[in-house]
Amino acid sequence: MAVQVEVWTDINCPFCYLGKRRFEEALDAFPHKDAVTVVHRSFELDPTLPKDHSDAVVPHIAEKYGISEAQAAANERGLGAQAEAAGLTYVTSGRDFGNSFDMHRLLHFALEQGRQEQMLDALYAANFAEERALFGDTERLVEVAVSAGFDEAAVRAVLTDPDAYADAVRADEAEAARLGARGVPFFVLDRKYGVSGAQPAEVFAQALEQAWSDHAPQLAMVADGDACGPDGCAVPQRD
Amino acid sequence: MAVQVEVWTDINCPFCYLGKRRFEEALDAFPHKDAVTVVHRSFELDPTLPKDHSDAVVPHIAEKYGISEAQAAANERGLGAQAEAAGLTYVTSGRDFGNSFDMHRLLHFALEQGRQEQMLDALYAANFAEERALFGDTERLVEVAVSAGFDEAAVRAVLTDPDAYADAVRADEAEAARLGARGVPFFVLDRKYGVSGAQPAEVFAQALEQAWSDHAPQLAMVADGDACGPDGCAVPQRD
Repeated sequence: MAVQVEVWTDINCPFCYLGKRRFEEALDAFPHKDAVTVVHRSFELDPTLPKDHSDAVVPHIAEKYGISEAQAAANERGLGAQAEAAGLTYVTSGRDFGNSFDMHRLLHFALEQGRQEQMLDALYAANFAEERALFGDTERLVEVAVSAGFDEAAVRAVLTDPDAYADAVRADEAEAARLGARGVPFFVLDRKYGVSGAQPAEVFAQALEQAWSDHAPQLAMVADGDACGPDGCAVPQRD
Repeated sequence: MAVQVEVWTDINCPFCYLGKRRFEEALDAFPHKDAVTVVHRSFELDPTLPKDHSDAVVPHIAEKYGISEAQAAANERGLGAQAEAAGLTYVTSGRDFGNSFDMHRLLHFALEQGRQEQMLDALYAANFAEERALFGDTERLVEVAVSAGFDEAAVRAVLTDPDAYADAVRADEAEAARLGARGVPFFVLDRKYGVSGAQPAEVFAQALEQAWSDHAPQLAMVADGDACGPDGCAVPQRD
């Protein structure tokens, strides 16, 4: 038995950063951890932003919510307190918001190499744990990916070819819509159970248990025929 | 929208070899081919065989079915005719049957590199298209994998470490049981539709259409909370 967890996220999303950590807490304590596979999927909070866009976080939030910058900064401190309670570094100034499409392309590049966690953790750290802008700067992305152990030439090849993994990102986004995700983080277990948001670790633990204890999914059999099994192959000309 | 196809197979299984080709025919003609991802999963027809076992195919079949070797050879010719009709080379002599666990470990190694098709095609060709034994011979496996473009040292590292990808193979097998697969090939589309056996391409086309046109899967939401969406993050201390 195995549980497949798909997590739709955006690098821009503080609750995704926090939710990943809380999910990992639950996963680390899950008795059947080795049977769980996790895949991170793409979701852009704002796909309309130009590729080279970089907007300082506090004014961006103030404008989005129609609140003062002081209130926006207080919101950031509130998020920071939650992140720190989960053991994460979260800086509340110097950060930016922008187009994350290239980052999602890199996540698919990393997935192909079985090293998606390393890429996502490096991107999150670059965005949330450093008092420095991240978006709209290809050289910075190269630096982040290389620091996570990825090959510089391969990373540059992905970033300079706008088509590389672009369809994979768009397919993830279409799939999120199909599954009814309106925000992120959005966790899907075995394409059956959903968890939306940066829930407490206990909620993720409960979802993992539920997926694990779930009985055999009922497949609708489209066709059943010539196959090989422990007792041999259903060879029509057997006698 | 995307369709995920998982295919449980064994290298020993003639219908898997044939089924892969027929599925590919359907996939090549499928208008939404680019939105389909295919993953090959492990199923051993006989996991009880010793690792170094190699049994000539015709006597093996004769014994399994309790038929004469002449009848077994005729069965093989029948399978060969079906394979050739699908454009595959299928030799009916010189082949063997054996323990495929190491091959499945290599398939998971290849999956991690995004090159599973190449590995599986090379293993099938080595088993079905060459008048030569394949099973129980690590050097032969290295040769097959290297001919498919895999790094020799990396392949040897997998084959000499019996734990490498072993849990992944066993997880696939447990998952097959959970999904109700009693034989292979066993195709599962979006964990919702099943196709068992080497069906005609038309059946695979129909299954792909069905999965594609399927409406949004209904997720059971375990929890719904702090998330970021196009309109911003649900920040509790917003005002």
